[in-house]
Amino acid sequence: MRRPEKYTPVPVRETGVDIINIKGIEDIGYAQQDSILLNALVPEENTHCRQGLYFQDGQRRVDYVLTYHIKKQSSSRRHSSRLTDNAFTRSLRRGRVPPPKGDPEVGAQEHSLHYHEDDKRFCRDEFESSLMEMGLELEKDEHTKTPGVGFVKIHAPWHVLCREAEFMKLKMPTKKVYEVKQGSNLVEKINTFITKLTEPLHPNVEENRIQNVKHLSYPFSREKQHLFDLSDRDSFFDSKTRSSIVNTFSTGITSLLANGVYMAAYPLHDVNGENAEPNDRKLLYEEWASYSVFYKYQPVGLIRKYFGEKIGLYFAWLGVYTQMLIPASLVGVIVFLYGCATVDDDIPSMEICDKRNNITMCPLCDRACSYWKLITACGTARASHLFDNPATVFFSIFMALWAAMFMEHWKRRQMRLNYIWDLTGFEDEEDHPRAEYEFRVMQKALKKEHKAQKVWLHYYTALKQGYVLCYVSLRCKLRNSPKENLVTASICAPQIGVTFAIVFGVIVYRISTTSALYMSSNPTTRSNVRLTVKTTAAIINLVVILILDEVYGAVARWLTILEVPKTDKSFEERLIFKTFILKFVNAFTPIIYIAFFRGRLVGRPGSYLYVFESYRMEECAHGGCLMELCIQLSITMLGKQLIQNNLFEIGIPKLKKLIRYIKSKRRAFQEEEQDKKLQRYETDHFLEPFAGLTPEYMEMIIQFGFVTLFVASFPLAPLFALLNNIIEIRLDAKKFVVELRRPIAARAKDIGIWYNILRGISKVAVIINAFVISFTSDFIPRLVYQYMYSPDGSMHGFVNHTLSYFNVSDFQEGKDPLEPTDLEYKVEICRYKDYREPPWSPTPYEISKEFWTVLAVKLAFVIVFQNVVMLMSDVVDWIIPDIPKDISVQIHKEKILMVELFMKEEQGKMQTLESKDSCNNHSPVPRPRSFPNSHTND
Amino acid sequence: MRRPEKYTPVPVRETGVDIINIKGIEDIGYAQQDSILLNALVPEENTHCRQGLYFQDGQRRVDYVLTYHIKKQSSSRRHSSRLTDNAFTRSLRRGRVPPPKGDPEVGAQEHSLHYHEDDKRFCRDEFESSLMEMGLELEKDEHTKTPGVGFVKIHAPWHVLCREAEFMKLKMPTKKVYEVKQGSNLVEKINTFITKLTEPLHPNVEENRIQNVKHLSYPFSREKQHLFDLSDRDSFFDSKTRSSIVNTFSTGITSLLANGVYMAAYPLHDVNGENAEPNDRKLLYEEWASYSVFYKYQPVGLIRKYFGEKIGLYFAWLGVYTQMLIPASLVGVIVFLYGCATVDDDIPSMEICDKRNNITMCPLCDRACSYWKLITACGTARASHLFDNPATVFFSIFMALWAAMFMEHWKRRQMRLNYIWDLTGFEDEEDHPRAEYEFRVMQKALKKEHKAQKVWLHYYTALKQGYVLCYVSLRCKLRNSPKENLVTASICAPQIGVTFAIVFGVIVYRISTTSALYMSSNPTTRSNVRLTVKTTAAIINLVVILILDEVYGAVARWLTILEVPKTDKSFEERLIFKTFILKFVNAFTPIIYIAFFRGRLVGRPGSYLYVFESYRMEECAHGGCLMELCIQLSITMLGKQLIQNNLFEIGIPKLKKLIRYIKSKRRAFQEEEQDKKLQRYETDHFLEPFAGLTPEYMEMIIQFGFVTLFVASFPLAPLFALLNNIIEIRLDAKKFVVELRRPIAARAKDIGIWYNILRGISKVAVIINAFVISFTSDFIPRLVYQYMYSPDGSMHGFVNHTLSYFNVSDFQEGKDPLEPTDLEYKVEICRYKDYREPPWSPTPYEISKEFWTVLAVKLAFVIVFQNVVMLMSDVVDWIIPDIPKDISVQIHKEKILMVELFMKEEQGKMQTLESKDSCNNHSPVPRPRSFPNSHTND
Repeated sequence: MRRPEKYTPVPVRETGVDIINIKGIEDIGYAQQDSILLNALVPEENTHCRQGLYFQDGQRRVDYVLTYHIKKQSSSRRHSSRLTDNAFTRSLRRGRVPPPKGDPEVGAQEHSLHYHEDDKRFCRDEFESSLMEMGLELEKDEHTKTPGVGFVKIHAPWHVLCREAEFMKLKMPTKKVYEVKQGSNLVEKINTFITKLTEPLHPNVEENRIQNVKHLSYPFSREKQHLFDLSDRDSFFDSKTRSSIVNTFSTGITSLLANGVYMAAYPLHDVNGENAEPNDRKLLYEEWASYSVFYKYQPVGLIRKYFGEKIGLYFAWLGVYTQMLIPASLVGVIVFLYGCATVDDDIPSMEICDKRNNITMCPLCDRACSYWKLITACGTARASHLFDNPATVFFSIFMALWAAMFMEHWKRRQMRLNYIWDLTGFEDEEDHPRAEYEFRVMQKALKKEHKAQKVWLHYYTALKQGYVLCYVSLRCKLRNSPKENLVTASICAPQIGVTFAIVFGVIVYRISTTSALYMSSNPTTRSNVRLTVKTTAAIINLVVILILDEVYGAVARWLTILEVPKTDKSFEERLIFKTFILKFVNAFTPIIYIAFFRGRLVGRPGSYLYVFESYRMEECAHGGCLMELCIQLSITMLGKQLIQNNLFEIGIPKLKKLIRYIKSKRRAFQEEEQDKKLQRYETDHFLEPFAGLTPEYMEMIIQFGFVTLFVASFPLAPLFALLNNIIEIRLDAKKFVVELRRPIAARAKDIGIWYNILRGISKVAVIINAFVISFTSDFIPRLVYQYMYSPDGSMHGFVNHTLSYFNVSDFQEGKDPLEPTDLEYKVEICRYKDYREPPWSPTPYEISKEFWTVLAVKLAFVIVFQNVVMLMSDVVDWIIPDIPKDISVQIHKEKILMVELFMKEEQGKMQTLESKDSCNNHSPVPRPRSFPNSHTND
Repeated sequence: MRRPEKYTPVPVRETGVDIINIKGIEDIGYAQQDSILLNALVPEENTHCRQGLYFQDGQRRVDYVLTYHIKKQSSSRRHSSRLTDNAFTRSLRRGRVPPPKGDPEVGAQEHSLHYHEDDKRFCRDEFESSLMEMGLELEKDEHTKTPGVGFVKIHAPWHVLCREAEFMKLKMPTKKVYEVKQGSNLVEKINTFITKLTEPLHPNVEENRIQNVKHLSYPFSREKQHLFDLSDRDSFFDSKTRSSIVNTFSTGITSLLANGVYMAAYPLHDVNGENAEPNDRKLLYEEWASYSVFYKYQPVGLIRKYFGEKIGLYFAWLGVYTQMLIPASLVGVIVFLYGCATVDDDIPSMEICDKRNNITMCPLCDRACSYWKLITACGTARASHLFDNPATVFFSIFMALWAAMFMEHWKRRQMRLNYIWDLTGFEDEEDHPRAEYEFRVMQKALKKEHKAQKVWLHYYTALKQGYVLCYVSLRCKLRNSPKENLVTASICAPQIGVTFAIVFGVIVYRISTTSALYMSSNPTTRSNVRLTVKTTAAIINLVVILILDEVYGAVARWLTILEVPKTDKSFEERLIFKTFILKFVNAFTPIIYIAFFRGRLVGRPGSYLYVFESYRMEECAHGGCLMELCIQLSITMLGKQLIQNNLFEIGIPKLKKLIRYIKSKRRAFQEEEQDKKLQRYETDHFLEPFAGLTPEYMEMIIQFGFVTLFVASFPLAPLFALLNNIIEIRLDAKKFVVELRRPIAARAKDIGIWYNILRGISKVAVIINAFVISFTSDFIPRLVYQYMYSPDGSMHGFVNHTLSYFNVSDFQEGKDPLEPTDLEYKVEICRYKDYREPPWSPTPYEISKEFWTVLAVKLAFVIVFQNVVMLMSDVVDWIIPDIPKDISVQIHKEKILMVELFMKEEQGKMQTLESKDSCNNHSPVPRPRSFPNSHTND
């Protein structure tokens, strides 16, 4: 019914045995016939087709290209095998097919390669003829300068474009033009002034001129063609739109790509290069993908025009985020400088550094450690003050509000872009079920209904749906039986378990090295113990994080494929969610451990807490764990950014290019050399395929986590993020413009699930910061001391107050220090940092009242902080309207203009219509709609 | 431009002086001319117009009625003045005009009444002619049986209906019918079984039969008339739709109503009564607005059909809420019964009641009070256990999840209704600016631009917009200069201040009465002191709440009017928000006081804390404040529901009817008697106008607050709410069907701002319940005792542990009890409930370590409870999809069907079009869209 009847469905008997059948059918005469049809146009002259952007006739634009591997009779088996492998590895990277490693089928596949090739050719012919039936025009080119690769160029003729644009409800600019008013005169003047002032910050692109007129947009409809300016049919739909229209035809293409039927499917880039005539890609290259314009705004409109809304939104978001980081880093630097400036006025660290306070501290471990002087902790105490001062409390409140502001600002920006990009009425496109899902449903049905008749019926249905057959037969060979959702949970949990285990391993490393080094007899080693261990541990952590990051990315993809989600959208969302969970846990577990668990349950001198008999619980240096948290944070963040950005994003592509170069040298040396002489579609074939925006977003989201989650302990995080992002934008820009195949333009109104993830992070950030301030920093104990215990309301005596007493005679046997003779005097009472009763109280070494007081205040602070900051965020969310006022006014105005336009049109029709119909003698003037509003904008 | 040119604009010079001008213009000949036109049809025969539902010709339906006051020359001045007042009071109630009381203008108005009447007539004529110009048909009827009231009946002819339906994008059922599948066979069978089982619960209405087929809906369009079944033009648009279409014409009507130009504007009800032929109203009366069907589901589809989507959604929401209350009350009752069953096993109350524990308690106040025995608190302790047991903790977690479930359930229900009611593609109608806002903008413009020329220009614009003139001139007389938004804040704050003051007043009453009664010498009085005081205080609170509720409703309305919001929607939202804040504070302040502030800072025996020298801070009875909270809650909730529902909602309408009856007896005795002989439009005129859904929602939202906010202390709240709602539904139903004029049907996709308020309440509920459990109940102290202090891990000794010691010799002079001889023995040490150091400690009467321990645990509990429950709610929110699966499948299916329908249509067109256009030899078959999905539903 849906396929033309002239195409006779091919009967196939069973899922597993179809290889021979298909082969047989193909032999009978199908492929032969079609390939003759397709090869009718032989690429001979190159003069017409203008650098490969047009068909041979030089008239019809190439909107889309499919490439496939040509199996030459002459070429060796190894060669074709290599190519198949390539297709497989790519498909693995793109997540379409998980080839079960070690599957016996793989071996079989190798054997049946020849059949495979025929299957593939059959599928291609099938697919291409279906495209042609839908009205597209194809040109095949197998004899290019790129050996072994065939190209199918696709052109969408005008009537197809119109039809599809109507179905897609594409909003196109009409002839009707209206004036965009920037509010009152004063506002307009100010705006003009600001624009002039920021002139050098704007990229040198047409789009950015302030436009006082805007074309009214309306969903394209062939019935209303008179509304649109169709004088130039070639440019009415731009190249991005044309390719995305062609893309809607190829629902099954992902599956065909995954099976290696095609190698790639991509729209063509514009020609880039010094000699090329000006085009969007060249403009983007000059005004966007260049480090020399790092201080400028991005030409978001142009990005959208060339890459589509989805990618445009990503860069717009990245821009807003980077812009918002400027005030955050400014405040962060000020907070840090405040810490630096007040370090000499900090009474507790002064007390620690004061030589007159000759405080003897208890050994930090049993046996091996000795007594030590508090004054040795002077440096750490002073350094801690840099990050642990009242300003950090202010800063973490500021950053919570900053996050809320950022979300609001983005919402408004998004709304503005939606308006400018004519997406206001756009609903998400219907989500096509993924081929894999279809396949699975069919498989299930087959399993259920054993009766032969029913199976036949199913096959018949499948066959009627054309090339579904192809991928069914191909997929069956892979026999990728989809697992249940439960699998995910049971595999995801171990993943997180692995992360925890590794964190634990690093802890154990740290503990054992510490004690080993402590026991070393070399005094210089011992003095450097802490620093060495801390730094090596942090670096080990970093390396582990980086490795696991890559592993987890693959694991998440694999798990999602096992789940077989129904639609591409749900596939993406599930994948993102899983990747996010795993990467997030990976990045933040060691940090959370240091912030909240380290040094909590250490016991007290004489009865330190042990795990596994000999490994003691870790303790933080005197002055709290904040300092160590800070080191860990900065190393992880800087390391991640430097290594992942520079090494992975710049280095690896360079390396790949090098390898490709070396490889190609052997086989076809001139390939790379002749780059300019190659057709456009050939050049693009050698670019990297676009792998989606997920990794780009993910990187930024993890960074956002670093910026907000532990900002109370590391106020410089926004600054680092800012510096990174300035590079990141241009780096990504270069990648998109030069190194990747042109992505298929996708429409999108928003950044989807990422927005929710951002919201989630900012909520979690409030709680985590509350805990960092009250439990990791010394803020609350100081506050409590000052207002409850201090005799004169100052901080004097705070250090003494936090130190408990220990009578050395209470050491259990075998736990007293081996070398107590380090000091010149006999130690009777030593001190340790805890709130415990002194030895002379009725309940010695019990937790004291002060401990509970401080704990209660800490907890109260958490409650107050969490609820107040959340309330403030909600208030910010509430008072800033989601839609900027001028935009809502414009949208309203557009609606009125549209109604007026149709009203005028109607008036003519109505007059004739009504004069017949109505018996009233008044004239049938349409009522003035919403007229009272027209003068509100005066 | 927008008005027909034949209508000459009337030039008017200034805002203030226009009365005479208008009068003059009117005299020249306008009104005369029009009234002749309108009075052409004189109501003589009654046979045709079928009980007043049709025009005199018996053909044209009356879709809308406007009524106005006829000033008879013969009638006394007082009479007309009364009517004007009526219009004013009504308009006040509807919130359109706030007549400034005591304004000198009111007097002037009284004087200029005669001019007024002429103005009004002019405005009416103006308005009516504009309606006629828009294609509506009018019939005037001034000689009805109701003296002094004129009726304008409006009929919308077919072409107007079609035109407007197209503009409003009304989705109408097409001829295309498809089958609704209920999933697989098994699911279908189960569904059929459930339907059969719940058969008696379903109302006896057509709609509720399971329909296996559904008409495909499509926005009505005259171009696509062939899609729709237009065989019966009279019933294609139902009466609700017709009246709402007419209503779209009368943008300025609210303003005209407010100024008394018209008395009322309403669509007609169906005829109700025993003899009437079956119609929707009658069916609703029988199957919905009756207490005898209280156990049944509501016929929501029918309600929507008769009253429109907005009211339909309210009742659907109320139904879902009531239904969800059933499990909540069940669990609540079980929790309460658990409390009852375990009261004898409760060790703390056993210890209090044990005569062997002869504990002497310290006096509860200085001087006046005496020592007392703990055993006297036995009853309170046992009663407290009913509401203060571990089950309540479970219950409040349950209720937080219940609230999340309820929100989710409602979202799904709403989505389902949207699908059934064809609202899936519906966007909110464009919001017309309110007339008051327009007026203000114009006034501002006038103030700004002093130059005469500009003023003239403005007036000219205004005049071109027809009857805007009328209300401008009328409104200017009232001179209601709109205040700035700031006013609101500055008035709202005192309002809340008043509430707090009143709460404080009640507290003072309670304190002073308590001490007065304590000092009384009568022992029986004294023993009843607590109960008397508590009950009277609660009742005073209740009365105050009820009175303030009414006051605040009026205040909120007044404030919102002062703000002059731009659109009706924003007016409604602001009003709701303000009313909600004020009423919420009003209802919950006393309860929050009891729960969290009472008995917190009382001091200790010998140094009780005093406010204002002689008033002591209140203390709770032994056993915590939970008992008192419970009493307060139940009295407020029950009282509010009983009094507001029964007295206000049933009693007052009855009283009003009585008054109207007595009044009418004097003037026109037969009016009420002849009810049946009156025309439909006359009967409806005497009904109460529909005042919006805000009060109905508000009542339910406050109730929702009672059900969720303090549920930890009063597990029976859901039960009371359930019982109330079962009555409430039928009460509201009766009101809507019988007592109110038919409301204008409004389309709505959701319940708007109420949903956000509900979400807000459930969030606040989590926090409040966390605090109630940890601070108001004894749950945490018991837990701490059991796991930290109890020698044997049981609760034995808990009472003793919570009581501190006081040495009577430490009483300051003049603070020791006057009558210490109440007991037989000499008291040396007395006990009091607090965690303080004993007299023999080094720091007597200081807060003890136990206090801080318990406090820390309490705070930790709050943090854990809040975050865990919120996380659980989010998880519930996340795992339950917002759109039920079957609905999303159906929506998807509908889309495909729609595309198919158009595809078929297109095929014909295309074939001719493409054969000219394309040069390919394949047939132009449209591509099968999203075909792979078609077999997923098999």
